[in-house]
Amino acid sequence: MLNPTWPDIGWSGRANNEENNATDLVLMITLDSDSPVPAYLQIRDRVVSLIEGGVLAAGDRLPPTRSLAHTVGVHRSTVVRAYDEIRALGYLESRSGAYTTVRHRARPPATLGHPLAARPGVDWQERLTAPARAVDRWGGQRPRSDTPADVIDLEHLAIDPALAPTAELRKCLRHLLLRSGREVLDYADPRGWWPLREAISLRLRTHGVAVTPDEVLITCGAQHAFDLALRMLTSPGHFVVLGRPTYSMAHTLLRLHGVNAIEIAVGERGMDLECLQEVLEGTHVKLLYTMPNFHNPTGVTTDQAHRERLLALCEAHGVPIVEDGFEEEMKYFGHAVLPIKSLDARGFVLYVGTFSKVSFPGLRIGWIAAPHRAIAALSAIQHTSILAPNTLTQAAVARLCTSGEFASHLRRIHRVYRRRMGVLLHSLESFLPKGLPWLRPLGGYTVWLTLPGSVEDEERWVDRLDRAGVRVAPGRQYYGSAPESGHLRLSIARADEDHIVEGCRRIGRVLSY
Amino acid sequence: MLNPTWPDIGWSGRANNEENNATDLVLMITLDSDSPVPAYLQIRDRVVSLIEGGVLAAGDRLPPTRSLAHTVGVHRSTVVRAYDEIRALGYLESRSGAYTTVRHRARPPATLGHPLAARPGVDWQERLTAPARAVDRWGGQRPRSDTPADVIDLEHLAIDPALAPTAELRKCLRHLLLRSGREVLDYADPRGWWPLREAISLRLRTHGVAVTPDEVLITCGAQHAFDLALRMLTSPGHFVVLGRPTYSMAHTLLRLHGVNAIEIAVGERGMDLECLQEVLEGTHVKLLYTMPNFHNPTGVTTDQAHRERLLALCEAHGVPIVEDGFEEEMKYFGHAVLPIKSLDARGFVLYVGTFSKVSFPGLRIGWIAAPHRAIAALSAIQHTSILAPNTLTQAAVARLCTSGEFASHLRRIHRVYRRRMGVLLHSLESFLPKGLPWLRPLGGYTVWLTLPGSVEDEERWVDRLDRAGVRVAPGRQYYGSAPESGHLRLSIARADEDHIVEGCRRIGRVLSY
Repeated sequence: MLNPTWPDIGWSGRANNEENNATDLVLMITLDSDSPVPAYLQIRDRVVSLIEGGVLAAGDRLPPTRSLAHTVGVHRSTVVRAYDEIRALGYLESRSGAYTTVRHRARPPATLGHPLAARPGVDWQERLTAPARAVDRWGGQRPRSDTPADVIDLEHLAIDPALAPTAELRKCLRHLLLRSGREVLDYADPRGWWPLREAISLRLRTHGVAVTPDEVLITCGAQHAFDLALRMLTSPGHFVVLGRPTYSMAHTLLRLHGVNAIEIAVGERGMDLECLQEVLEGTHVKLLYTMPNFHNPTGVTTDQAHRERLLALCEAHGVPIVEDGFEEEMKYFGHAVLPIKSLDARGFVLYVGTFSKVSFPGLRIGWIAAPHRAIAALSAIQHTSILAPNTLTQAAVARLCTSGEFASHLRRIHRVYRRRMGVLLHSLESFLPKGLPWLRPLGGYTVWLTLPGSVEDEERWVDRLDRAGVRVAPGRQYYGSAPESGHLRLSIARADEDHIVEGCRRIGRVLSY
Repeated sequence: MLNPTWPDIGWSGRANNEENNATDLVLMITLDSDSPVPAYLQIRDRVVSLIEGGVLAAGDRLPPTRSLAHTVGVHRSTVVRAYDEIRALGYLESRSGAYTTVRHRARPPATLGHPLAARPGVDWQERLTAPARAVDRWGGQRPRSDTPADVIDLEHLAIDPALAPTAELRKCLRHLLLRSGREVLDYADPRGWWPLREAISLRLRTHGVAVTPDEVLITCGAQHAFDLALRMLTSPGHFVVLGRPTYSMAHTLLRLHGVNAIEIAVGERGMDLECLQEVLEGTHVKLLYTMPNFHNPTGVTTDQAHRERLLALCEAHGVPIVEDGFEEEMKYFGHAVLPIKSLDARGFVLYVGTFSKVSFPGLRIGWIAAPHRAIAALSAIQHTSILAPNTLTQAAVARLCTSGEFASHLRRIHRVYRRRMGVLLHSLESFLPKGLPWLRPLGGYTVWLTLPGSVEDEERWVDRLDRAGVRVAPGRQYYGSAPESGHLRLSIARADEDHIVEGCRRIGRVLSY
């Protein structure tokens, strides 16, 4: 029923509607059956072009789906789907029980047929605040793709998902959803789920830290904990002390807060305390950020004396400490050194912990242990900015802890990583060129290598390793300003023993050439 | 075996240890069997006091648990538990396979026996930044206790947990944990889980908003979405326009950002646009925050013309809009008005949505739909501050959407709430004193009452209602500065039809007295 004036859409005037004297349109649409475009989209696009072209006006009634389906020769559901699409684009109105009528749109829908680049409008780049601009990277963050099978991953720093207690988590979730009250899916206390805060306070006792559940705040991971601490204590232009090198995202976070980083060298015994003392004497520092165990990226663990001196220095200058205990649970060589927080009689330490490095990074559960007054202020900031963390996953992890499954899991992964680290250390001794400096860690996941040549060579080394099929973390990202030499961080988190041996063999080959 | 010099702890010197010539302590501890303090804690406290008193020195070996258990006359597990506690307090060292020895502590553990108030140290209050102080409330936020059975809850504004699709969620989680790759428990894309972004972009089409998944960012709830938008666009001292009244936590959030609120009156047709125009002409406004559907707290839904004028005004003055579509899915009366975002050809609108009001508030999943360039900047801020949202629950909700369960769930709750709202409106007509103004909503959960008397009477009315066994939300919290009259917000989210009738009867009785 091709209409001569409209190549594929016919229109045979307005028919009388017996029920209420209004008229319905009769549309005749011929589909292109050779087109790859599905029938419902062809119908949609033709109706929209009739509306946009002014042929169909506001208030006009579309034919009932059944009759259009009959006219066009398609199943009624195809027309229903097309009408749904047209409605979704804002071109239709339906009053319940009544007909579908064309709706006036002041403008065409925002994105239909307009490629993003062609849109006029807001220059978002120009509107960003300076801190937002400082962390912005066009296109957003894209996580690195999965490591191909023949490539060895010595880069990632979080437990191998194959080792995580997934079955136990599933049981906990099942139990909660079947047996618990509905509160596990409702808004919860902005300070965190009480049983989890209690489980964490018990767990911290095994590390010499005696805090009550009221001195624990659950956060969306350790990064979020540090963000909250900065929101509580710093304003743009303030100074915060970090190790040099340090966790790369700590620098990014300081930029988001508009805060200045003061980098203090981290050697094989930890942060240079003479240098720190000088800085604290000369500058009004708002916060010090440190990782006493298995420091990221160097793997350095400080001794008891260093911790005591560091705390004493900060107390003397009135500087609170953010102690990042991200790998507290990875002390598998058994040389327990207790956290700085265990010495913190005066309440200077905001201790940050996380489940991400030893269990489920995707659940985003971290915490801060701190004096009650600081927890209250941090909770208020958390409540204001996110209301509260995820209730269900907090409850599941709490159950994992109280059931004893978490402790058993830690024992299991300690056996695995103790062996892996042994293999790594042995392989480095066997395969690395002699005289290449690297540090022997007391646990954790990482070893830090110093590269031969100048700092500019680092990128070249990393490229070569990439081509040789081994991924590592380049050292540059852990520095605020350019380092003195090139480095690599090797991680055993996601490589099994065979991969570690082969990875070291490849690294040795590349570095020896 | 009471020792005369130590009332309850005996010590009979050092015994030879045959294996390696070192000596073990033999502790004789008599327990007070009448004490309410458990045996393991009595043992712990006595050993700690021996160490603190200098009787036991660093390097001294504690007796093996078996022999101490024998000496004291308790089960070995009691001693094991006591040693675990002492170790947790930092007083012991165990080398694997070797004995447990006393460890030197430079200071006693931080909190043992020191009530918080007695601690010297940091004055956290004094250290808070001005914005942190502005949101701080000593003691943190405590969620209101559960409503007792005889009290009617017309206060809460999130779906009745009994109506949430819990069984469906459980199935989705089970499927993911049994059948999916491990990526559902790993760190994920900071922009959010791709299938959920895709499901949201499809869902938004049914509301006339055409965005691609790349124009969607998943956040930890709608509050977090607004926080990210403020971080992107505002600095302390900037101006943001809000309705008057408006969502109470929007004001708190502006305080956290040190941003000034400009309140524009919201009447029964929405925000006063003449007044808005004047403000925009006179002030450099960075952002406008609005809720076109079922405005919280008034329940007002603006019409198409209002939305078009509001957008045109903001475009003319270059002011981006945060459109809070927190109850977009609650249009159960069928009068669809499309979001402002559906008109947003130039990319001025950051559209905020959430699953909290219609499904699971505890999962903390919200989103922003915005131009790609804005999403990129927001993602960078999200990545810097929390790395990424919870992967597992995002994946579960995505599955709930793609399986069609979410759409069926919405149809079910629409039936429930359409009836409930009908009952509320009818009950208000029946029971409220004549002449008391209230607004008839087109959907959503809430109705807004204006109270008789002066604004100062509001608290008194709310107290009387509380005593009459009905909880409502007092109006004061929705204003930045004091309102002209007292108000109540009534919500049907968590009250069934009988409760609604009885709640209105009680309200009518109190207000009529």
